[in-house]
Amino acid sequence: MQKADVVLYDRLISQDILKLIPGSTRKEYVGKAPGRHSATQDQIISRMISLARQGNSVCRLKGGDPYVFGRGGEEAVALQAAGIPIKTVPGITAAIGAGASCGFPLTHRGLSQAVTFITGHSADESETHWTALVNLQHTLVFYMGVSQHSQIQNGLIAAGMAPEMKVAIIENATSLQQRVTMGTLEELNMLVSVNSIESPAIIIVGEIVSLGAILNSEALGWIEERIV
Amino acid sequence: MQKADVVLYDRLISQDILKLIPGSTRKEYVGKAPGRHSATQDQIISRMISLARQGNSVCRLKGGDPYVFGRGGEEAVALQAAGIPIKTVPGITAAIGAGASCGFPLTHRGLSQAVTFITGHSADESETHWTALVNLQHTLVFYMGVSQHSQIQNGLIAAGMAPEMKVAIIENATSLQQRVTMGTLEELNMLVSVNSIESPAIIIVGEIVSLGAILNSEALGWIEERIV
Repeated sequence: MQKADVVLYDRLISQDILKLIPGSTRKEYVGKAPGRHSATQDQIISRMISLARQGNSVCRLKGGDPYVFGRGGEEAVALQAAGIPIKTVPGITAAIGAGASCGFPLTHRGLSQAVTFITGHSADESETHWTALVNLQHTLVFYMGVSQHSQIQNGLIAAGMAPEMKVAIIENATSLQQRVTMGTLEELNMLVSVNSIESPAIIIVGEIVSLGAILNSEALGWIEERIV
Repeated sequence: MQKADVVLYDRLISQDILKLIPGSTRKEYVGKAPGRHSATQDQIISRMISLARQGNSVCRLKGGDPYVFGRGGEEAVALQAAGIPIKTVPGITAAIGAGASCGFPLTHRGLSQAVTFITGHSADESETHWTALVNLQHTLVFYMGVSQHSQIQNGLIAAGMAPEMKVAIIENATSLQQRVTMGTLEELNMLVSVNSIESPAIIIVGEIVSLGAILNSEALGWIEERIV
């Protein structure tokens, strides 16, 4: 990032990160507002190829990890096809950042042997395999799930998950504006609505959410943490 | 890490990381050899508590992310119970590091809408929900899977996964000793045996493995990459 000629950066990059880019480096904002993804992804890819062909070393700066719901794979394939060599640097994806900063171990002996990262978006498209997700009996993390919270609650309960299963909604994970709301699956709709929860947010579903209350030193305990 | 009085570090911490610890800081190796986990985990926790109670600022340095198969949750719960305040720093877990360094986007539009991280260990204990894993139709990453490669191959195929499903085995992900072996699910046993694959390694199962051959500039192509 410090050696690039141009940095193309996304919407969720913090000012602290942007300050690490030298002042002489060209910075271009290519953030996408929710709901307008498909329109501009092609433009971003074209811009990267164009800049690289002009001889620039281009840094594509994304929040989280580029290969976990970051569309980095699509950009990498397009660049490769254009004959432009790339190097990918991994990042802290939202689920892992939120796990550490809010005290949710995504896996934990006796509570969860595995973890699945999935998007709320796919819930809209009937592509989510609800029964399989419930049968896994392990931690589920829904990315970009706030606008699909009803589908998540209904889909999981209809597939047999206990309505009392614990959930945590984390807004602005790892930032100073981070907010954690905990409750149960059957309360999910109500929690989002009563607390006016907005994206960006992830929803963690699973037994390990109970450890969040134990580990979060600011929490008074499981019951007190619920905002209802 | 630079400000701690004592650093307790694991087996897979590279020399490059250890060099970042000031020379005056006490360093204690607490690495666990495979198969001896349960015996020493309690000792590590006791040591952390003992050092903290002596007034030390203790850094517990782990490879990957502490809350993804890192047993960080168990340590955090024990420290919390002992009244010792903690702060958890997230890390790059093996699947995400391997994805970036070997060119495997863990999610990719049209190929995989989600990703599951699971251990090979649980395959041994009949705890793995093979049918649910297959029904998800998304990327699966098995951690610590080398010694259980037969159970993984048999479990997934018996549950209905196509024997032709693509797999990648990545040894020593993100290190200079990194090695990638690709093939199909029905070849998994053979690939591990013919190539003498050893832990630490992860096994990626899913359609996105086909992108690894595209993205990995060192690969000659899908067919040539298979070592058989």
